[in-house]
Amino acid sequence: MHSLRFTLETSSHGVVECDFTLGEVTGVLWSPTSGSEHAPLVLMGHGGGLHKKTPELLARARHYVTTHGFTVAAIDAPGHGDRPRTVEDEQVRADLKQAMAAGETQRVESITVRYGTALAQRAVPEWQATLDALQQLPEIGTEAPIGYGGGITLGTGIGIPLTAIEPRITAAIFGGGFVVHEALIEAARRITVPVQFLLPWDDEHVDRQSALALFDAFSSKEKTLHANPGDHRNIRWYGLDNGFLARHLGRVDTSPA
Amino acid sequence: MHSLRFTLETSSHGVVECDFTLGEVTGVLWSPTSGSEHAPLVLMGHGGGLHKKTPELLARARHYVTTHGFTVAAIDAPGHGDRPRTVEDEQVRADLKQAMAAGETQRVESITVRYGTALAQRAVPEWQATLDALQQLPEIGTEAPIGYGGGITLGTGIGIPLTAIEPRITAAIFGGGFVVHEALIEAARRITVPVQFLLPWDDEHVDRQSALALFDAFSSKEKTLHANPGDHRNIRWYGLDNGFLARHLGRVDTSPA
Repeated sequence: MHSLRFTLETSSHGVVECDFTLGEVTGVLWSPTSGSEHAPLVLMGHGGGLHKKTPELLARARHYVTTHGFTVAAIDAPGHGDRPRTVEDEQVRADLKQAMAAGETQRVESITVRYGTALAQRAVPEWQATLDALQQLPEIGTEAPIGYGGGITLGTGIGIPLTAIEPRITAAIFGGGFVVHEALIEAARRITVPVQFLLPWDDEHVDRQSALALFDAFSSKEKTLHANPGDHRNIRWYGLDNGFLARHLGRVDTSPA
Repeated sequence: MHSLRFTLETSSHGVVECDFTLGEVTGVLWSPTSGSEHAPLVLMGHGGGLHKKTPELLARARHYVTTHGFTVAAIDAPGHGDRPRTVEDEQVRADLKQAMAAGETQRVESITVRYGTALAQRAVPEWQATLDALQQLPEIGTEAPIGYGGGITLGTGIGIPLTAIEPRITAAIFGGGFVVHEALIEAARRITVPVQFLLPWDDEHVDRQSALALFDAFSSKEKTLHANPGDHRNIRWYGLDNGFLARHLGRVDTSPA
């Protein structure tokens, strides 16, 4: 078992950012400058081709830390961000780029499903090992409630199988923008924790019906579908239930004692 | 033109309730005990077979008045609540009851569409006349922003054609639970104001796809679909954007001066 190695710590505007490695996994942990003892821990996924510190992900992580007092963790998916790419990773990216340029929708879809499924198979145990390691930290421990903070696209493709087999995750945010395949539907059926599902209503890359079928598949007694116009690159979310994770994980009182 | 006649005024817990008639239309106006001058006006629809003062409608009206300082108006649909039923109204109710008891889904649907469309045709001009009359009241006037506060089922069947032709309505809440017909889709296409659309995910009376097609039809740049598990009689809404109307109509400062 690899152990967590913190490589860099910075702090700004009330948020401490700690980069870490766990074996070959590169990750980052954000926490409040004070009072993060056993605070809820939110796991954030990033989109396909992106990484753990995109501006959008950073903004949401900061919001969770400063508004709710959460601790937030993100890791790079295999072949993404600060992690080396294998020959296969490079090949898939090249194939995908070519298929997209040629407008070969079917081929884009088949590559995405195959590669996305392979990435999820590698990423799920990495998230579990990361969770194990984070729970060794005294400020997190095993008492901190854990939620999956989502991200649509790849973040959902990894988050759904992770949440399906990981009982430590007790609430999750998923979304559309990922090609839905049968294994994903199967994993969704095994999920019973509260789910918030974000659907870009006009995603040209993903069939709307299959995203609706994915929402339908969750066995959760409490699940909310939230759709706004836009595709997964150009969407402005509004009217969103921003208190979802705080309601299910608990809110940390960040007011000065 | 008929004029508004107030018939009864009661007041409790910060809300004044005034029953009124406008010709044969029976209605009710709720307003804050103080500070309602030109406050946003919210029009509320009720469900099929119900009336303007169901417990659910009352609760939402009270919430709008006490939380946002809105004025709220509701009228009984033709043949509903305090209004006399025509021979046709009685006949339709009997037919519908019989078709439901016999489990004749197709017949229930065809009666609902036919009767619902006829009700909407009568109710839309009634709402417009009610609006004209309410705007004559000095405390409302023509400055008060106007929203449609919805209600699913019949409240949507009437609210969509109303909002489509009524430029005074600048934001609207609609929902599923009403059989979607082509005229309703056409009316939805003419709507451009912000829309919040509430969908009971498991409604056994209404095809989910047709409700999704209705949401899809709104031309509004800003529209939100919100779905929770349950049918239209047994649904618990959560994670809902309760600030939707306040954001679009403006919020009244109800704090003491």
